[in-house]
Amino acid sequence: MSSDSENTSFITHQVIRFGDVDPAGIVYFPRVYDLIHQAFEDLWNEHVGERYYKLIAEKQFGFPLVHSEVDFKRPLLFGDRPEVSINCTKLGRSSIGLHYVYRVDGQVCVEARMTVVCVALKTMKSMELPAPYRERFKLILSR
Amino acid sequence: MSSDSENTSFITHQVIRFGDVDPAGIVYFPRVYDLIHQAFEDLWNEHVGERYYKLIAEKQFGFPLVHSEVDFKRPLLFGDRPEVSINCTKLGRSSIGLHYVYRVDGQVCVEARMTVVCVALKTMKSMELPAPYRERFKLILSR
Amino acid sequence: MSSDSENTSFITHQVIRFGDVDPAGIVYFPRVYDLIHQAFEDLWNEHVGERYYKLIAEKQFGFPLVHSEVDFKRPLLFGDRPEVSINCTKLGRSSIGLHYVYRVDGQVCVEARMTVVCVALKTMKSMELPAPYRERFKLILSR
Amino acid sequence: MSSDSENTSFITHQVIRFGDVDPAGIVYFPRVYDLIHQAFEDLWNEHVGERYYKLIAEKQFGFPLVHSEVDFKRPLLFGDRPEVSINCTKLGRSSIGLHYVYRVDGQVCVEARMTVVCVALKTMKSMELPAPYRERFKLILSR
Repeated sequence: MSSDSENTSFITHQVIRFGDVDPAGIVYFPRVYDLIHQAFEDLWNEHVGERYYKLIAEKQFGFPLVHSEVDFKRPLLFGDRPEVSINCTKLGRSSIGLHYVYRVDGQVCVEARMTVVCVALKTMKSMELPAPYRERFKLILSR
Repeated sequence: MSSDSENTSFITHQVIRFGDVDPAGIVYFPRVYDLIHQAFEDLWNEHVGERYYKLIAEKQFGFPLVHSEVDFKRPLLFGDRPEVSINCTKLGRSSIGLHYVYRVDGQVCVEARMTVVCVALKTMKSMELPAPYRERFKLILSR
Repeated sequence: MSSDSENTSFITHQVIRFGDVDPAGIVYFPRVYDLIHQAFEDLWNEHVGERYYKLIAEKQFGFPLVHSEVDFKRPLLFGDRPEVSINCTKLGRSSIGLHYVYRVDGQVCVEARMTVVCVALKTMKSMELPAPYRERFKLILSR
Repeated sequence: MSSDSENTSFITHQVIRFGDVDPAGIVYFPRVYDLIHQAFEDLWNEHVGERYYKLIAEKQFGFPLVHSEVDFKRPLLFGDRPEVSINCTKLGRSSIGLHYVYRVDGQVCVEARMTVVCVALKTMKSMELPAPYRERFKLILSR
């Protein structure tokens, strides 16, 4: 949970690996989206309380990305251990807006706004986000 | 060049590989950003007329991403061979706005707006885009 | 086909991309295995005469790797355009041994020996390599 | 440390992520080499006692791979949390042989033998592995 008492973020930590970094010594940006997806999986595993692979492999629904907007404010460097905070900015019938902030030493490095939609994998049609999951996303809804 | 006579896009083609695809059979979205970077490298190699590795390895400047906005309209599937068209939407002193459109069978799958900044790699400070390159980007400037 | 008249290799070309390279300026080695898989897909598309995605998506069989042995002799560098030659070293009922050689300016950089097995994707059990494909692999069999 | 009292392995754990998995639901094999490199980084961070990024970024030496031999015995699946054990099989002046075993529920999935060489990054020439590190690798030397 964030230090900000009026808000509740999911917080996780990541490590910038050798394989994430380009010849200029900073993160090759497509890897940032990979890290964002890993943070999303951790949000499911640790906050929502459902292992993400179960959704896909057993329950047969998933969350394709429909829109992303990302600002790269400071470079993430090899060896950095960013703190990642995630908030929910929108909670529709099937769509979820998520706001990710990557910070190193308190400085914002990356800010991402991602909109995903809950779909049934067999038809790839949108479906309502099941209520028990919705309750968990409400807990990290931005005010 | 695009079929649209009043506009001039750089066009390239890509292939959705086995390793790009997730268990749902559609492109794992972080791979799309990798494909976008590859298209950017091809723009340098084939349109601007400078091999991208020379910029980085010899001339010591690069183009970190500062902002991206991407819409995923239709899934890219394993085996797809999207046509990628690139236009320049903004040409500042050091920043370049680029618009990428991925189409399969004429249907738009992905639309991306990326802003990169020309920086000297040693200092990571912005620098003016050299004039010969600017001329080449002007040729794909959207009207 | 190779210049060596007594042998017949499948030859393809690749490019070492920005995203393949690590902070030391050489290819991050896991990316080499990705390039090897891309060359394998090209072998199917261009030499065997079946698009690889059709095997997986429609015919429902695939070729998981069971053994690999790779020597890294010279580093592949950002901007290199290696020539990749592929020979078949073993053609069993369901298993195929493939020998990949990466050369830059005639110098061997990477040599890989990969054994894959033809499996039915639904059961993940080995199956006989269909005869028409076998004929195509015979053409690149090492003597 | 392993449960085997006569041996001392470095043990770490990993998670098979959504982005590691191919359309057949098993790990896309090039990702395994990426996981092996991450385990190698963890070996440095947690067992050798030096953060791997410091070696590269500050001390300016690294460990390119010269040889790898990998057996894929059982598929790693999405959601698996393999235990990875690492032993040192050879400790030369500058070369290190490492043996990685990936196990899920006690069953061996992947076994890898990797030989890396300590090189000075500026010259890419081999150099002697510094003594304090050598002592740490001795502790996981196979008998």
